[in-house]
Amino acid sequence: MTPKIAFLGMGAMGRAMTKNLVKNGKLDEPLILWNRTHIRAVEHSEQIRNSAAIESLEDAVSTADIVWSCLSTEKVVIELFDTILQQDVRGKLFVESSSITPEATNSLAARVGNAGAEFVGMPVFGDAGLANAAILTCVPAGLKDSVDKVLPFLKGVIARSVINLSDEQPGSASHLKMIGNVMIMQMIELTAEAHVLAEKTGLKNELLHQAISTIFPGSCAMYSGKMISGEYHRQPLAQIDPARAIAASILDLAKTSGASLKGYDIASKHLDAVRSHVGEGGNISGIYGAVRLESGLLYEN
Amino acid sequence: MTPKIAFLGMGAMGRAMTKNLVKNGKLDEPLILWNRTHIRAVEHSEQIRNSAAIESLEDAVSTADIVWSCLSTEKVVIELFDTILQQDVRGKLFVESSSITPEATNSLAARVGNAGAEFVGMPVFGDAGLANAAILTCVPAGLKDSVDKVLPFLKGVIARSVINLSDEQPGSASHLKMIGNVMIMQMIELTAEAHVLAEKTGLKNELLHQAISTIFPGSCAMYSGKMISGEYHRQPLAQIDPARAIAASILDLAKTSGASLKGYDIASKHLDAVRSHVGEGGNISGIYGAVRLESGLLYEN
Repeated sequence: MTPKIAFLGMGAMGRAMTKNLVKNGKLDEPLILWNRTHIRAVEHSEQIRNSAAIESLEDAVSTADIVWSCLSTEKVVIELFDTILQQDVRGKLFVESSSITPEATNSLAARVGNAGAEFVGMPVFGDAGLANAAILTCVPAGLKDSVDKVLPFLKGVIARSVINLSDEQPGSASHLKMIGNVMIMQMIELTAEAHVLAEKTGLKNELLHQAISTIFPGSCAMYSGKMISGEYHRQPLAQIDPARAIAASILDLAKTSGASLKGYDIASKHLDAVRSHVGEGGNISGIYGAVRLESGLLYEN
Repeated sequence: MTPKIAFLGMGAMGRAMTKNLVKNGKLDEPLILWNRTHIRAVEHSEQIRNSAAIESLEDAVSTADIVWSCLSTEKVVIELFDTILQQDVRGKLFVESSSITPEATNSLAARVGNAGAEFVGMPVFGDAGLANAAILTCVPAGLKDSVDKVLPFLKGVIARSVINLSDEQPGSASHLKMIGNVMIMQMIELTAEAHVLAEKTGLKNELLHQAISTIFPGSCAMYSGKMISGEYHRQPLAQIDPARAIAASILDLAKTSGASLKGYDIASKHLDAVRSHVGEGGNISGIYGAVRLESGLLYEN
């Protein structure tokens, strides 16, 4: 028998991951879906089948062996665990895939441990598009025995690859994810600058996109595609305010620790410019729009 | 019979490309090697065999059907063509692979055309390491008939891939290369910032390197490797002064055209910091050292 899994959070990431858990996870029992706004879990369950939307958080948790969460902000994660840890969770495994700080992760891990349960911090690399295509990169960290229990549901199920941080502190995966954010935001920045320079100096953006796809496949090519297609100013794949909150906490950490992140600071200021120009519906690839504005072009291409 | 090729310039890139031309190019006749300092061509010819070092530039050019150049700076390229165009070059094809500006490329193409010869601008993406491994990306631009003549010596010979800009202006390839530089320098910057943040906040750099290799294979992973191995402060793969000259001309172009390149500007200032700290022996991945200095660490790791 596979363990019974309850998945908490039906945002874009949660919906994509649960779709693939049901499709590829060879689960013996229906996947339990929980969401604060219950109707979203119901609708999603109808779409993906082989699942059960449960309205009560307490019931969802008490039924499950593995409680897997993927929520929008750190505040929401902590509030959710405040509620969950009021019930008996002994023997359960918690897998936490939201984008939260290392400190919050380690603190949750300690509280869960004190309650007699196991904890794996497992942020993922990739947006909802990659999650949908089951090609995320998962970074599980925690005691090896706990990590081993979640491995069967990763590679080939929701992920293309796994960076296995067995026996590292749960927070080390969040730590890695934060540093990955420093990289991804600057990849968007540099791709945006490249396209703006091309447009301002008369090189066809389509030609540049072809070159990027050949020379820099992966993240830059993906964001380049969102830029030339205009998707950057339409579809809010990763919402701007959670992204800005993460950037602010990383820049705080950099300041405290003395790390110089000048390039990241530029990208982060462009996130603020997206927020100012578009409002909370903006998304991170809108950095392209921000660089366009600075260069005397319209935000929209 | 394959065309007779003369290659001008035995720098790190020229040596690597000629090594692979001889090894993989199925040339019917020895490759002609020319270098301003003749002895370097002689020594290299002894190493790679099936080639002939010729001391006289005039002889090297007059013997060849294809004259392929890869030199260190724009000034050197223009001086070389000033000399070459004093002789009869009718019917020859010039392939120019140095990193020079679009304007210089188009100007050379016009002069070569007036002299009754053909011209392909063909910058390459990749450093000497990739050139050695025959996995460059070549970007030939010019009349299709001319580009077609050089294609047999690219993919599988010196390159992994070709971005074919047939019937685009020769300068458009240099244009693309300039914009590629905007991207590459920021990839080094973001990889440097990520490693410094890891070190300052207690995440093992080896762990970060593993993650980068999984999530961002390609350029970031390559530079990450040069950073954690310490190669960034040892081996001058791409010398700092030519890189700074390119950065300066790109920032000039950005200013003139009104393109905002704030992220690139940060990376460019770090190139200057490398020059100040290490002198002309520094190399572009030394950006890591510059970010380390700003963060209160030693330049060397």
